[in-house]
Amino acid sequence: MSLSVTTPFTQRIPVRFHHTDPAGYVFFPRYFEMLQAAVEDWFNEALGLNYYDLVNNERLGLPTAHTECTFTKPCRLGDFLDLTLFLERIGNSSIRVRFVGMVDGEMRLEARSVLVIISLNDGTPRRISEDLRMRLEAYMAGQGAQPDAPPARER
Amino acid sequence: MSLSVTTPFTQRIPVRFHHTDPAGYVFFPRYFEMLQAAVEDWFNEALGLNYYDLVNNERLGLPTAHTECTFTKPCRLGDFLDLTLFLERIGNSSIRVRFVGMVDGEMRLEARSVLVIISLNDGTPRRISEDLRMRLEAYMAGQGAQPDAPPARER
Amino acid sequence: MSLSVTTPFTQRIPVRFHHTDPAGYVFFPRYFEMLQAAVEDWFNEALGLNYYDLVNNERLGLPTAHTECTFTKPCRLGDFLDLTLFLERIGNSSIRVRFVGMVDGEMRLEARSVLVIISLNDGTPRRISEDLRMRLEAYMAGQGAQPDAPPARER
Amino acid sequence: MSLSVTTPFTQRIPVRFHHTDPAGYVFFPRYFEMLQAAVEDWFNEALGLNYYDLVNNERLGLPTAHTECTFTKPCRLGDFLDLTLFLERIGNSSIRVRFVGMVDGEMRLEARSVLVIISLNDGTPRRISEDLRMRLEAYMAGQGAQPDAPPARER
Repeated sequence: MSLSVTTPFTQRIPVRFHHTDPAGYVFFPRYFEMLQAAVEDWFNEALGLNYYDLVNNERLGLPTAHTECTFTKPCRLGDFLDLTLFLERIGNSSIRVRFVGMVDGEMRLEARSVLVIISLNDGTPRRISEDLRMRLEAYMAGQGAQPDAPPARER
Repeated sequence: MSLSVTTPFTQRIPVRFHHTDPAGYVFFPRYFEMLQAAVEDWFNEALGLNYYDLVNNERLGLPTAHTECTFTKPCRLGDFLDLTLFLERIGNSSIRVRFVGMVDGEMRLEARSVLVIISLNDGTPRRISEDLRMRLEAYMAGQGAQPDAPPARER
Repeated sequence: MSLSVTTPFTQRIPVRFHHTDPAGYVFFPRYFEMLQAAVEDWFNEALGLNYYDLVNNERLGLPTAHTECTFTKPCRLGDFLDLTLFLERIGNSSIRVRFVGMVDGEMRLEARSVLVIISLNDGTPRRISEDLRMRLEAYMAGQGAQPDAPPARER
Repeated sequence: MSLSVTTPFTQRIPVRFHHTDPAGYVFFPRYFEMLQAAVEDWFNEALGLNYYDLVNNERLGLPTAHTECTFTKPCRLGDFLDLTLFLERIGNSSIRVRFVGMVDGEMRLEARSVLVIISLNDGTPRRISEDLRMRLEAYMAGQGAQPDAPPARER
């Protein structure tokens, strides 16, 4: 299976008025909306699936069971945030993804999330299908090397 | 210094229509808006300060530099989420807080966040003032024992 | 039928960090989230129904089919917005409500919305039940006089 | 003055998970976030200005003083909403814009908003500059005929 999109999948997000807070920076919960949107487009554009069909017709969901995020440096209104998605682990019914967010090549955030495949009908986990697993493995094989994490800081 | 509010600080949040997603569950970025609101009211009600004066007049901000959150079980429209805030560490210019969210005594989420005190004028960290430090220490001393973390799971 | 809550129904909303924009004012789409929350609590507290049961169990929804809102003066972080709900019209499957938002007795916004009762199963309008109609009529009878609209301005 | 972008300005918005509610439809306050984003991109792409420079550097804002919106038919997750912006009036310090939202050529919403130019430093209205007025007039002259409004309905 070949993927037609250059990997790793990267989405450019303009930092908009509705993302920002009275300090003029992105209010951090808005970043999680961006992560969710990136997952949707990663399904559509990099995995060759239709995220919305999965939800609307197959009644599958992909809720975030765990997330952690370090906000290295704030983003301001008018910045363009390049959000790259790396797939780190494929489990039985979950995946772990790493997001790296950069503005002009400078790291602004790094996040890791565990996403679980569930049935929207009863909320219980579903085993990843063979088709999805193949697509995930192909993405993982082709995503290339990951950038380093930002150094830890104590304040 | 005595605090007039029963510790640990707990905020009851009705799960509203605007929190929920097509699965009928809280969409996870909304939880981070709730954490932010809990910090605001913790300042106002448990620390005896006025969060809004800090922002509007003293031009101090309290951005989240790091957060991690485990969503143990989803919350549904109409649930009442009790969000409790424990203060775990007081640094030079940052604090680490733990949030535990329960519905009817059952854990739904657990989060840890590092909040940094910054000047909103230049975005740089500010040393925690003596007054704030005393209030934080008093809260920490009186907050009581913390509930256990949810057990780790692999999926 | 008597209603146990003082009418007209008024909800006090603290203006929070997540409501505000880089100008330090409430970002206007957040007001519509507040209007929605006010309708939920109006059902629960003033009409004596459970909004969440209606959605979760009876599978009824109350989408906004039309809204218009004048923002007379901005609200700032730390303001307390008192949002009052007046019922203006009861139709076959819709109601028209007027919202008046004040801070310290000074008008900040005025809105009118048409809300339609629909089935969440098929999205089509549902006739207002006799029980709901009686509750709505009792509320309307007891809500008292409405404050004037703000004067129109040309800019 | 010539504008390099085809008018009227239209933005295609994928309806995302974070826009939708438990009914699977766009939650109406999210539409107002979309209207705001459309105005930003209209400035950048159709008027040839930089909206973010105006806010960040010239400290100008464009708050919505009045809006009214009719939601003709709901949008669902996965729809692509084409939002077109028509400029209807240029005042001294405000403009009136009409938004028409369509999915596959079928009207889903129609909105009118009055946007006021203000100084972010003191919140007071600012006269529209000659440069901005020329750009607005050029846009208005070239935007073409508007689609009809949806017929009024009583429910």
